[in-house]
Amino acid sequence: MTTGAESLLATLEANDVDVCFANPGTSEMHFVSALDRADRIRGVLALFEGVVTGAADGYGRMTGNPAATLLHLGPGLANGLSNMHNALRSQSPIVNVIGDHATYHRDLDAPLTSDIEGAARPFSHWVRTTPTADSLGQDTAEAVRVSREGKIASLILPADAAWTEVDAANPIAVKAGEPAPDPHVPDGALEAAARVLREEGSRTAILLGPRSATPDALAAADAIAAATGSQVLLNTFMSVISRGAGRHGAQRIPYPVPQSQELLSKFDNILLVGAKPPVAFFAYPDKPSRLYQPGTRFIDLTDGFQRTVESLESLRSELGNTVDTPALELQLPGLPTGEITPEKLGVFLGHSLPEHAVVVDESITTGRSFGEATDAARPHEWLTGTGGSIGYGMAASVGAAIARPDQPVITLEADGSGMYMPQALWTQAREALNITTLIFSNRKYQILRNEMTNVGVPKFGPKAEALLDLNNPGIDWVQLSESMGVPARRATTIEELQAAFTAALEEDGPHLIEVML
Amino acid sequence: MTTGAESLLATLEANDVDVCFANPGTSEMHFVSALDRADRIRGVLALFEGVVTGAADGYGRMTGNPAATLLHLGPGLANGLSNMHNALRSQSPIVNVIGDHATYHRDLDAPLTSDIEGAARPFSHWVRTTPTADSLGQDTAEAVRVSREGKIASLILPADAAWTEVDAANPIAVKAGEPAPDPHVPDGALEAAARVLREEGSRTAILLGPRSATPDALAAADAIAAATGSQVLLNTFMSVISRGAGRHGAQRIPYPVPQSQELLSKFDNILLVGAKPPVAFFAYPDKPSRLYQPGTRFIDLTDGFQRTVESLESLRSELGNTVDTPALELQLPGLPTGEITPEKLGVFLGHSLPEHAVVVDESITTGRSFGEATDAARPHEWLTGTGGSIGYGMAASVGAAIARPDQPVITLEADGSGMYMPQALWTQAREALNITTLIFSNRKYQILRNEMTNVGVPKFGPKAEALLDLNNPGIDWVQLSESMGVPARRATTIEELQAAFTAALEEDGPHLIEVML
Repeated sequence: MTTGAESLLATLEANDVDVCFANPGTSEMHFVSALDRADRIRGVLALFEGVVTGAADGYGRMTGNPAATLLHLGPGLANGLSNMHNALRSQSPIVNVIGDHATYHRDLDAPLTSDIEGAARPFSHWVRTTPTADSLGQDTAEAVRVSREGKIASLILPADAAWTEVDAANPIAVKAGEPAPDPHVPDGALEAAARVLREEGSRTAILLGPRSATPDALAAADAIAAATGSQVLLNTFMSVISRGAGRHGAQRIPYPVPQSQELLSKFDNILLVGAKPPVAFFAYPDKPSRLYQPGTRFIDLTDGFQRTVESLESLRSELGNTVDTPALELQLPGLPTGEITPEKLGVFLGHSLPEHAVVVDESITTGRSFGEATDAARPHEWLTGTGGSIGYGMAASVGAAIARPDQPVITLEADGSGMYMPQALWTQAREALNITTLIFSNRKYQILRNEMTNVGVPKFGPKAEALLDLNNPGIDWVQLSESMGVPARRATTIEELQAAFTAALEEDGPHLIEVML
Repeated sequence: MTTGAESLLATLEANDVDVCFANPGTSEMHFVSALDRADRIRGVLALFEGVVTGAADGYGRMTGNPAATLLHLGPGLANGLSNMHNALRSQSPIVNVIGDHATYHRDLDAPLTSDIEGAARPFSHWVRTTPTADSLGQDTAEAVRVSREGKIASLILPADAAWTEVDAANPIAVKAGEPAPDPHVPDGALEAAARVLREEGSRTAILLGPRSATPDALAAADAIAAATGSQVLLNTFMSVISRGAGRHGAQRIPYPVPQSQELLSKFDNILLVGAKPPVAFFAYPDKPSRLYQPGTRFIDLTDGFQRTVESLESLRSELGNTVDTPALELQLPGLPTGEITPEKLGVFLGHSLPEHAVVVDESITTGRSFGEATDAARPHEWLTGTGGSIGYGMAASVGAAIARPDQPVITLEADGSGMYMPQALWTQAREALNITTLIFSNRKYQILRNEMTNVGVPKFGPKAEALLDLNNPGIDWVQLSESMGVPARRATTIEELQAAFTAALEEDGPHLIEVML
């Protein structure tokens, strides 16, 4: 005798989904109960649904395997949508399980009723309401299969489908089918790419998309670039970048339009490797939306987002004359001293990042110099906010830390963005995750002060000013962090920061450092 | 020379919309800049969008007039959707302004692009993307008009529509049309209602919906009930209830299915006044979803949600023989002592609620006895979570306090629900709002422990237990509150609670009391 909820969980287990980030409600009680009997699935409670989906994003980025989420009807899903947007742009696999009223209860329009499918669709690749307990094995397996293509699968679970017993003739745990095969390199693309590399190498860029900055892909791209005089570029916002000593570097397209335009003006040809033609993050009056020069020739090597390494290896074969290039050598800058500035913070990170750190970067304006300063640091992975949805950092760190329990996770968080989902700290404490969070406290939405000027507003008055200001009252991040069980310290100098950072890394569990700017 | 953003704000001003709750981003910078020149509109910053929409809900409940919100593209909207769900169920007027990319930028699929209309639709009555600066006056006026029907209007504002100049031939500030006239009382409904009241008065209930518990409507309903032996009932979850001494009481339908069934089994007829046939909040195995007995006759007196008083007055005329009943007399229970229990908390509130308090109730399980205990307290307004979306309380209090600056706002918040949007405390501090928040700290999702049993799970293991537990780590609400600038105290006895409550009410600005259960 097996309920639908048990079939759902057995199917997740059969397909090696081993963590469920959850914020449950009444309709999900049978799922929660069934979790007790699903020995291979870890249940992780978050106190807000954005933490649930953000954690699943972080987990998916680090493993390529979906986490499950558990969300409570339309409003519970709604709270998770913004981080689903980032996950979608990151091509992270996620299986959402969204509880709904019992099927016979839905038409009564009870207070918590809403159009869950409609709410899920803009932020999911796949949405299905499972009709009965008997359909849960198949539908869950299909959700897992779809997610493994780097997609968001949202499975809506009516309460009666969860609590009803599965017909004995039905399989309980269903194996997921294979993900759709990655698309082949488009016909002729390799030949065309090899030709422009040979003939116009110095005017050609190889642009790697969100999931394509793995060590092997970066090494292959670097070999091609060295052999042809071309340049390897990365999207401004990437799912994961493998960086530091022992890896091969590549330049990210800068965020500000003038700088990105200047960089891309050097290229007549851009080879797309899991990437799309680069466009500005926002439109600005009198600035172009397309960052590349008019007439740029694009050659798509992957027709999508997978097979990155294979495509680059095929291109190397096609070129025939490439040799491996040396990886970056470790180059640790000296530790700066005194008062903290954004530039010194970059150098500090270059000096101090521990080996195999997973860096979750939501540092916004404070972090503009961090990339260059950490290029030749100890080897590490670097995650960024792929969809521009603010507040992903501390939540994604939860998932990254659960995916990589033996690697230190470093969260670089602006104070403004940190305030969107501070509840992530509580889950970090409950799960005793090895996360060190640096909060960059400048007490303003500095990016909006910059953007205000960019969009042509030279001077702003007291009301506009107040909407970009995080003083009055200032936020005490040490208190905030400790209120949720994460030990915290404040640093006003590089020396204090270094001492706090070292202490945080030495002790198990999460820590937070409020970095005063 | 007027921009679209200026036309939007001038139209809001011309229609007496005088507050905008905002969490802006780059695309909204022209709106923010224009706010500097909109003297009659107060801008209120929130650090998370759920606070923005929750505040607009609270404001709309107290004034009947829409607040504007300002939200940043799809993810910013997404973070505000759950509180929009409550507002929708509360029939609160709201005008959402949702920034979007410039029209010519949208098709480029920049990282922050998403289907904003699709995301807004499940939680809005009206959704429109304004095409140009020239359309903003008309579209804004239409949004205001729609909202005044107790609806959510979501206006999507492309950045170029905001920054472009309005054609000189166009009106800048457009007056909103009149809301659609309230539907008439359905033909024959009054006569039918009068008949069942005369013939089967003791088997008849008068059920008031979310917006219908005004002092006048309650008085009219009470007069009818007294004349006919019928009973006045309220929905379980109401937008606002006018309660206490000088008002006329009415029983809310209890949340638990067995109790509500028992109550409703007394009635063969239910007169609906801005209400719908009552159904269970959730479905439970082997329990009915419809709370009324089979064969109940419903008579709808309002065919919607407005004209409550008029309908009841018409019914009184039709009956001919009703007289005004005396209002409730003030009856203050004695102050309990010692250790705090949920029951003593109710008595404490009955004793201590200040005159004309606005009580925002998200006390979940702790508050089950509060209603009865405060029936004859000093006169006050009582707001509840109308849509079952958790986390509305502290945010709605922001809007209620701005709507009623001379009345003390008392927020009754469970610790679990409070953790969904604690950022509301920061806005309470910034705006120096007279809000006293009681956090009922039982360190668990107690309602889910109850519901687990209700859905037929008698006993649960460690994993299920952990997902309903808020210990490990415990949340220090005093620290959390003070980290955002709201002075806080902890109370472990009724005496400490009374001292902290009195002190909080005597001092201007927000305060928080962590009530240990």
